[in-house]
Amino acid sequence: MNEERRKKWIEERKSRRKNRDAKSIFEALRQGDRVALSSALTLLESSATADRVLAKDLIQLALPYSGKSRRIGITGVPGVGKSTFVEAFGKKIIAEGKRLAVLAIDPSSEKGGGSILGDKTRMEVLSAKEEAFIRPSPSGSNLGGVARATRESILLCEAAGYDYVFVETVGVGQSETVVHSMVDFFLLLMLAGAGDELQGIKRGIMEMADLLLINKADGENKQAARNAQREYKNALHLLPPKESGWTAKTATISALESYNLDLVSQTIDEFWEHVLANGFLDLNRNEQDVRWFHEAVKSDLLNLLYKGEGAKERQKQLEDQIQSKKVSPFEAADSWLNEFLNKHGIRN
Amino acid sequence: MNEERRKKWIEERKSRRKNRDAKSIFEALRQGDRVALSSALTLLESSATADRVLAKDLIQLALPYSGKSRRIGITGVPGVGKSTFVEAFGKKIIAEGKRLAVLAIDPSSEKGGGSILGDKTRMEVLSAKEEAFIRPSPSGSNLGGVARATRESILLCEAAGYDYVFVETVGVGQSETVVHSMVDFFLLLMLAGAGDELQGIKRGIMEMADLLLINKADGENKQAARNAQREYKNALHLLPPKESGWTAKTATISALESYNLDLVSQTIDEFWEHVLANGFLDLNRNEQDVRWFHEAVKSDLLNLLYKGEGAKERQKQLEDQIQSKKVSPFEAADSWLNEFLNKHGIRN
Repeated sequence: MNEERRKKWIEERKSRRKNRDAKSIFEALRQGDRVALSSALTLLESSATADRVLAKDLIQLALPYSGKSRRIGITGVPGVGKSTFVEAFGKKIIAEGKRLAVLAIDPSSEKGGGSILGDKTRMEVLSAKEEAFIRPSPSGSNLGGVARATRESILLCEAAGYDYVFVETVGVGQSETVVHSMVDFFLLLMLAGAGDELQGIKRGIMEMADLLLINKADGENKQAARNAQREYKNALHLLPPKESGWTAKTATISALESYNLDLVSQTIDEFWEHVLANGFLDLNRNEQDVRWFHEAVKSDLLNLLYKGEGAKERQKQLEDQIQSKKVSPFEAADSWLNEFLNKHGIRN
Repeated sequence: MNEERRKKWIEERKSRRKNRDAKSIFEALRQGDRVALSSALTLLESSATADRVLAKDLIQLALPYSGKSRRIGITGVPGVGKSTFVEAFGKKIIAEGKRLAVLAIDPSSEKGGGSILGDKTRMEVLSAKEEAFIRPSPSGSNLGGVARATRESILLCEAAGYDYVFVETVGVGQSETVVHSMVDFFLLLMLAGAGDELQGIKRGIMEMADLLLINKADGENKQAARNAQREYKNALHLLPPKESGWTAKTATISALESYNLDLVSQTIDEFWEHVLANGFLDLNRNEQDVRWFHEAVKSDLLNLLYKGEGAKERQKQLEDQIQSKKVSPFEAADSWLNEFLNKHGIRN
């Protein structure tokens, strides 16, 4: 066998092996194998080149089977009872014969010790069910990377046949906006406070909510929760109408006592009826996809420049030259860009 | 003479010629030659490669002599009396023995027919003065390009010895923000309305203002102007304090009758005393420079991708593939970026 043919043979073997691997993982996860799904999601979160290649193939295989779940974002400040709600509402969904995947976005979580869902004991019953799949947040402090992995995870969960995909996040920083940009329905959990209901909640988050739930409406807290609900209802009326044509709803619930969870389920059904009828569901998903595409292009391209070898030092150097008036800001920009392009053989 | 030496000789001659040209233009403008300054600014606005080379050299020569003027932004809706104000206040500045350059940013202006300052007859007296230099807005509908040319123009005007540089803009779109990012002092012209003083003015613009002038405080309008001033003063109090530590001032003026222009001049002097004492003037200019640098890097790099040959078609193609689920948004982003880099020989 000559060198040429030998190389080709190795290439083909590699390629067959790669395809078989991605394919076998995919086939297993399509059959409902939760270990296969777990390994697939781990590949999505990996930055190793070999893993990225497999992850690419997996996404490609999953795409035709994706899009059939209800993608629901869930947010609320720490202590609002998100885990208890997901546990209680998840059990209800499973009891109706559906399957549920729970993902999370927590950009602050460290490898192996995420603060959301890291501890599955917080959802003891749900995590033991065959029909539920619970996955802690991808690790990493870079919200962009975490978001990308989570978004691709939704596609694989859908290919694996989950009817509901929850994406949970804590109400801090930009993570709600990121979750909102990958779900169909956005659920905001609140607590009845001491009269100052509207304090401490960002208007932007209220504008995103399709359903606002006042949790812990149990025992002596029931009336306070109802009062809070009225206040939020009034506040929601002042917001501009949604592009979906849907009017945000409010309800008091008790995740602990499973109170009013029927109403939540009914509201979600109504929402889907509404957005399927007016075409917003598909429209919104298409717009989300195109937005993700452009954001990925932009951040990846800028990362090439800003995170390249020696980029930080060069940036600092140019900023110093600008401040000592050795070079104008635009001149400095031209220089840096030309260096970047030349280094890589591009002619500007 | 062999080929090698001949080439070198031509290069050197070109280079000498280029340097002599940039240098001679620069020396002429340093001597106060307004025609030289005009041609220099025309080079800054040009996109021809040869002009860009000369422009680069001019900026480089000007940098050590730049930074000594008072850079003042002036904005207000059409009809507020910006030209009348610049004419009257400019005459006052000249009478004090100073020299004034007036630039403009109007992204909507077309080649040869800018709507601001295009018609110098609107500043008849000022434009006839040796100590004043009036320049219409660079043409072009791209605010980024117009802004860059104007920002570089400030440097050349300063090298030409102008003590004041006014940058005028109409109160539409993003142009005020752009002007604000290149000046030291921001002056907002207003009119007394019919009671609804605070209507129609963007909060963001009021936050930028260092001095808010109610113009046309003459004849029967005087009292209305004073009432308006009081309302604006109250509104300004509600805004967060400025980073400069300066408290925005208000005044009623009549550009037509030159009423209260002394107060304007005095306020500007006070401002300079304040920001020279606390170091904000230099700090702010340095921050502006660094911001311009990064914005130029980002927009130039993205333009290379988005405005490259065939980019629009490829973008459309990928968006279609995304929407028909043939490819994921991130996959599409990777593909496009890799094509861009490969086309130019970069390995990602």
